[in-house]
Amino acid sequence: MKNSILTLLAMFAFLTSFCIAQDTTYTPSSANQPGKEYPMVNAKGQVKAKVFAPDANYVQLDIGAVKYDLKKDKQGYWIGESAPQDEGFHYYQLNIDGASVPDPGSKYFYGASRWGSGVEVPAHDEEIYALKDVPHGTVREHIFYSEISDSYKRTFVYTPPGYETNTDKSYPVLYLQHGGGENETGWSRQGKANLIMDNLIAAGKSKPFIIVMSDGNWTFRRPPSQNEADEEDGQRQWPPKGWADEFMNMLLNEIIPMIDSTYRTIADQDHRAMAGLSMGGMQTRVITLAHPEVFSRVGMFSGGSISPADVKEHPNFMDQVDLLFISNGSLELENAGRFGGDPQENTQKLDEMGMNTHFYISPETAHEWQSWRRSLHQFAQLVFQD
Amino acid sequence: MKNSILTLLAMFAFLTSFCIAQDTTYTPSSANQPGKEYPMVNAKGQVKAKVFAPDANYVQLDIGAVKYDLKKDKQGYWIGESAPQDEGFHYYQLNIDGASVPDPGSKYFYGASRWGSGVEVPAHDEEIYALKDVPHGTVREHIFYSEISDSYKRTFVYTPPGYETNTDKSYPVLYLQHGGGENETGWSRQGKANLIMDNLIAAGKSKPFIIVMSDGNWTFRRPPSQNEADEEDGQRQWPPKGWADEFMNMLLNEIIPMIDSTYRTIADQDHRAMAGLSMGGMQTRVITLAHPEVFSRVGMFSGGSISPADVKEHPNFMDQVDLLFISNGSLELENAGRFGGDPQENTQKLDEMGMNTHFYISPETAHEWQSWRRSLHQFAQLVFQD
Repeated sequence: MKNSILTLLAMFAFLTSFCIAQDTTYTPSSANQPGKEYPMVNAKGQVKAKVFAPDANYVQLDIGAVKYDLKKDKQGYWIGESAPQDEGFHYYQLNIDGASVPDPGSKYFYGASRWGSGVEVPAHDEEIYALKDVPHGTVREHIFYSEISDSYKRTFVYTPPGYETNTDKSYPVLYLQHGGGENETGWSRQGKANLIMDNLIAAGKSKPFIIVMSDGNWTFRRPPSQNEADEEDGQRQWPPKGWADEFMNMLLNEIIPMIDSTYRTIADQDHRAMAGLSMGGMQTRVITLAHPEVFSRVGMFSGGSISPADVKEHPNFMDQVDLLFISNGSLELENAGRFGGDPQENTQKLDEMGMNTHFYISPETAHEWQSWRRSLHQFAQLVFQD
Repeated sequence: MKNSILTLLAMFAFLTSFCIAQDTTYTPSSANQPGKEYPMVNAKGQVKAKVFAPDANYVQLDIGAVKYDLKKDKQGYWIGESAPQDEGFHYYQLNIDGASVPDPGSKYFYGASRWGSGVEVPAHDEEIYALKDVPHGTVREHIFYSEISDSYKRTFVYTPPGYETNTDKSYPVLYLQHGGGENETGWSRQGKANLIMDNLIAAGKSKPFIIVMSDGNWTFRRPPSQNEADEEDGQRQWPPKGWADEFMNMLLNEIIPMIDSTYRTIADQDHRAMAGLSMGGMQTRVITLAHPEVFSRVGMFSGGSISPADVKEHPNFMDQVDLLFISNGSLELENAGRFGGDPQENTQKLDEMGMNTHFYISPETAHEWQSWRRSLHQFAQLVFQD
């Protein structure tokens, strides 16, 4: 008996040390450039950076709004790690003697109004966006000239596996928007929307549909002097000019007609959805409240909610919208009311009023991409299922 | 009479000063990130960099294999310019106290085996790749699992304007390869292959065809230790393992069958071409000499040539290939023989032997993207015209 207990204790000690070892073992981030070892990540979510800067006075890893000092080794490399980060994708940068620059080890992603570094912290549910040997859809870069904004724009179009060869089949469409400081590349790069869909479709958990990811930033083509006039104290205006009404004009009058005339869509309200994250969620709110005759399914990821007052003001919304999906990261819930009322409470009230609502909370994540990947993963299983 | 001469002299002086002013006026590079002013370029081809690094000891602009020292101003910005560069696209980086990092002002491009900064020097013929209000094709990111390399690969597929809607029309295909240290993104990003084609098709100068741009780097998925064994003295082997034979295997047995079964191609030798730049040209040489029954049109841009000895060894090449297009930048011509004989002389001999050959020299450019953009622009007007 004693021996058994000792054996059990020994096993427990071994397993504990093994788990700790696992937690602190660093491996290259999956968002690194080919052949680049750093940045590395461990199971605790720490990010370890390393950069060669032999003549620098100081180097910092700037992630999650905190700057971590790196230490220089004898060869001239600066090395150090961050506190644990949440699961999933994070923007970051290096600070070399006061210069904020991308890390030469990572791939680059558009966020915080710049192309910059990104790192992937392993997630317990990373299978949902893993690259697997399943049939893959494709993501197209679609360039067009927008008369409304007098500028060239591009939109990225995901078409599901089979789209190229089933040329007599038409598909529903989801218009899916990025957040503030991001652009039309976000959902297919750091969002991995295409891989989430490929995996869901292969598992029979989502019907195949087209996703259109557009540039929701409103940019006139105009002289720099006028752009400067938009800025106050060196800060760009927030929200950016035209963030809702002008983008709505372009979406309804240029993008949707172009998509419906170019791709094999089912071009009616019943087969058209809109969703977005953060600013994209707020755009979704304004646009679908104003035009429920265009979209039958609505998703807002960390981007506010629809309140009873909203549907009182826009009574057609409740009549015409078949699905209202609202989500937040659990770690941002206490601040989620800043976009117009508590989202969970608002959604509960609309559900009681008879709407088909879903409220999703992403566990242990904040206002960040892991919340939005999971939100799309949930939304896609509901959106065109009926 | 004298007055006329004085007037002419005055006009001449004015125009001269105007031209010089034009030459030295700096404007933001068209490859900059949205809203970023630097790097700037002028009509002489100088590149001016500016970066905020208040605590740095030194900052350099590293372009064209030369490092230019920048000077610090009172606010902590480092500023300076390069010697004139050739027209077109150039990779570059910043050096901050010994750290080689991307410039936070530019967009990023894959070359020199890394994602790094790029700058556009205005070119006299930049109209050929300008973004214009013409019908645009799309570029798809197509992910696939390669059994031969036991890894996930992706290929970018340009389909011409009208492809999406003319679902009963099939198209010829050009397989177009990047150079050493580059990847499958090169031709559609810095190469602007899609814009070159959109403009040619709109002008009626090229027939519409599909372009397939694949990853020509051979990467087994294997333990890092084995990868390390490939490196000698910290340098990767050159040419990389499998650069020709293994890539040929993947192209012929995986990529071409996949493209022909997924897209509306005319799946025969008469409607299939292969071309490439530098290493991609050398791959084109090896693959089309070995398999002229697969490709009827062949292009090698700054990537060697086909010699009389080659066609003696592979007699089917002359019989089966309808077009052989060879090109170089004028500034690399004196070294062009390093890839197996003088390309102009070789091509002249093959022409005399009865082949349909074209030799093109890109004026005042070297082993760089402006030579290759122009080469594609020329090649596309010849390749499927008959």
